[in-house]
Amino acid sequence: MLSDEGRAVQTLTPSMVKRVFTCGLVVSAFGGSRPPLYRCPMTLADRERAGASLPRAGARSPFVRLAALLAEIAPGKAAINLALGEPQHPIPPFVGPVIAAHVAQFGRYPPGKGTDRFRGAAAGWLGRRFALPRPLDPQIEVAVLNGTREGLFLAALAAKGWVTPRAGRPVILLPNPFYAVYAAGAAAADCEPIYLDATRRTGFLPDLEGIDPALLSRTVAFYLASPSNPQGAVADRRYLGQAAALAQRFGFLLMSDECYSEIFYGGEPPAGALEVAGPDFANVVVFHSLSKRSNLPGLRVGFAAGDGRLMASYGELRNIAAPQVPGPAQEAAVAALADEAHVAANRRLYEAKFALADEILGGRYGYRHPAGGFFLWLDVKAQGGGEAAALALWREAGLRVLPGRYIAHDQMDGTNPGADFIRVAMVQDQETTAEALHRLVAVLG
Amino acid sequence: MLSDEGRAVQTLTPSMVKRVFTCGLVVSAFGGSRPPLYRCPMTLADRERAGASLPRAGARSPFVRLAALLAEIAPGKAAINLALGEPQHPIPPFVGPVIAAHVAQFGRYPPGKGTDRFRGAAAGWLGRRFALPRPLDPQIEVAVLNGTREGLFLAALAAKGWVTPRAGRPVILLPNPFYAVYAAGAAAADCEPIYLDATRRTGFLPDLEGIDPALLSRTVAFYLASPSNPQGAVADRRYLGQAAALAQRFGFLLMSDECYSEIFYGGEPPAGALEVAGPDFANVVVFHSLSKRSNLPGLRVGFAAGDGRLMASYGELRNIAAPQVPGPAQEAAVAALADEAHVAANRRLYEAKFALADEILGGRYGYRHPAGGFFLWLDVKAQGGGEAAALALWREAGLRVLPGRYIAHDQMDGTNPGADFIRVAMVQDQETTAEALHRLVAVLG
Repeated sequence: MLSDEGRAVQTLTPSMVKRVFTCGLVVSAFGGSRPPLYRCPMTLADRERAGASLPRAGARSPFVRLAALLAEIAPGKAAINLALGEPQHPIPPFVGPVIAAHVAQFGRYPPGKGTDRFRGAAAGWLGRRFALPRPLDPQIEVAVLNGTREGLFLAALAAKGWVTPRAGRPVILLPNPFYAVYAAGAAAADCEPIYLDATRRTGFLPDLEGIDPALLSRTVAFYLASPSNPQGAVADRRYLGQAAALAQRFGFLLMSDECYSEIFYGGEPPAGALEVAGPDFANVVVFHSLSKRSNLPGLRVGFAAGDGRLMASYGELRNIAAPQVPGPAQEAAVAALADEAHVAANRRLYEAKFALADEILGGRYGYRHPAGGFFLWLDVKAQGGGEAAALALWREAGLRVLPGRYIAHDQMDGTNPGADFIRVAMVQDQETTAEALHRLVAVLG
Repeated sequence: MLSDEGRAVQTLTPSMVKRVFTCGLVVSAFGGSRPPLYRCPMTLADRERAGASLPRAGARSPFVRLAALLAEIAPGKAAINLALGEPQHPIPPFVGPVIAAHVAQFGRYPPGKGTDRFRGAAAGWLGRRFALPRPLDPQIEVAVLNGTREGLFLAALAAKGWVTPRAGRPVILLPNPFYAVYAAGAAAADCEPIYLDATRRTGFLPDLEGIDPALLSRTVAFYLASPSNPQGAVADRRYLGQAAALAQRFGFLLMSDECYSEIFYGGEPPAGALEVAGPDFANVVVFHSLSKRSNLPGLRVGFAAGDGRLMASYGELRNIAAPQVPGPAQEAAVAALADEAHVAANRRLYEAKFALADEILGGRYGYRHPAGGFFLWLDVKAQGGGEAAALALWREAGLRVLPGRYIAHDQMDGTNPGADFIRVAMVQDQETTAEALHRLVAVLG
């Protein structure tokens, strides 16, 4: 089974949904005053079912679903895999020598929250990269992660214990489509997941103004991704400020997943949530990764930074339960954070591939050059929807792409914001990418 | 803050205890027929309090407590740290070259459950080391971990979702004293933790016959450690078979923490729970680590193996939420698992230090050469108990040791099975260890 590609997104099967959604409540992304579609009182029996719903079986990886979709169908041409969002540009040349120089550290437990050198490097990088209200304190506001995935998961548990009691059944908000770990975090924290559609009409980000205040008063945490996966939308400072203000007003935690922040195109680099969270970074924690920025998905180094009060709770949980990051890997990350040349070179490689998409796709499938990230999110409703298009692309052209439905959640009204789409990862080299895009247009028209 | 030393044990503060123990129920390790000391019906309010008790704040590391105990007291001699259980023998010489040879793998996501090579190596090692009823299937019965700590934590969540509905409030059993992550796993899975005293009278392992069947029918999982930390007791095949039979009869998961299995003295290597679990390894998962066996606490590689049904659920959770282990680290682990010479050499280093303890301590403080592990667990009741002894050893001799109370849980009747003890880690070199033991006897008499 695949490694879930760090950013893989997962849909939930009916049995899991049944277990998780003891009290479904859908909020429209439009019409904040529209009443919830469905509401039920919480009984003990419901709650116990919810308690039994920790993220276990029933969840099927989108890649397992894709394999099932394409099983027993021969690819029409030599296969090209555009389904998996795995960076495939070369790793920075200094990684090997830095690790070799610190190999003895494999013999010592690394500090749980990260080495002083790593936390200093992460705080320094955040300060150079973002317009922070003040420098971060690396002692209390930064922690190393084994990539953002485990960090996002455990943060939901920490947030659940950190918030003041909620006005009703606790909720975790997440965008739809979404990264699978958001839903797993909500389930593990025994919170009701509320999927906020992020569609063209909402600028491919959740509509903050459409969220019912009654829901916000039950909210423990809000997973927000900018640049978003798969759409590549970037939240501006105004949007991020609005999200942070909601978190502060309602006392929940804004968990801002910024792992694609360095993969951006044209103009300014994306803003980060710490820029707008005020001098204490109150109620905001950001998540960053070396996987995309530095093409190091296998190094497993990321970091969290933000509100020192939350970071203290998070650190207590992490000190007991979390993975640790080897010292040599932290040293490699220190070197990577000190260098922007490889990051710019990496960005140019993606930029060149999106230039190909501009040229080859033109305005087909609702394509527009995204603001960030490395996916195409193509509307293939006219071609029969995401699954039909994925099937045709494989059968006729050997292209493996992901149906958008597999990385989004069915809403109560039966809609699924990914159903009309395919996700195409621009991770192959330029020549392969060009070939793939030509084949795609030839099949889809 | 320290990294929790991989095996650190943590006690809970009253506020956390209050949150966790919504329905306290203590089972004596003796007298299985004795009624529970306390029982209460579970109300929704209780349950919601429990739900709010995910492992967050309130937990204070034993090392933080020790630092507070010794704060502002100058060491009487040059300090020697025997508090932290961090292996300090040299790492195997092949680790650096193997990692260097595979450095490009830092650029690829490793498979979530581990590389084929790693899982094959782990299954092969388990087959050589233990008298298994049949070889393990590395495809479905083995998974890589970032060390056992995160693995033990997430296994509680997986077990909660895997068991059939329990007859009442779900429970997780754990030994007392205990490794902190066991309690964190129970809290995260929203299970009532039941601490089973492991004292001299019970052979320093939980008394299996003393556990109320009504409790077993509520049990989701049982954390068992052999060799035990800190006492170094080893469960024999009969004991392990009894534990596995209980798991199978009552449908819970036996989580056998065998991370100290290669640190043993005299005679036979310790048995493992997979030896007695039957041909399907039903209801049993074992946890192993390279940290102690190969002096690689900073490599962060361990593995879980056992019941394929549980491993499937566990794998689904891990694929979405778990840390990943870098490919080069898995390659180093493959090399380490293929070599027993460094393991034997490592064992001889510990053995020599326990020979010193035999000689210098004699029969003082209830000391007996342990069957396994690398701790002394010394009864200092006559010296005023663990905290008084730890204070005296620091003040008079510069020895930093851990009061046993800090790694055990207060029972409802006020007893604490660690209160009379100190834990002394035999991780320094032989000369330093000899000096430390002489100082210890000089102070404690």
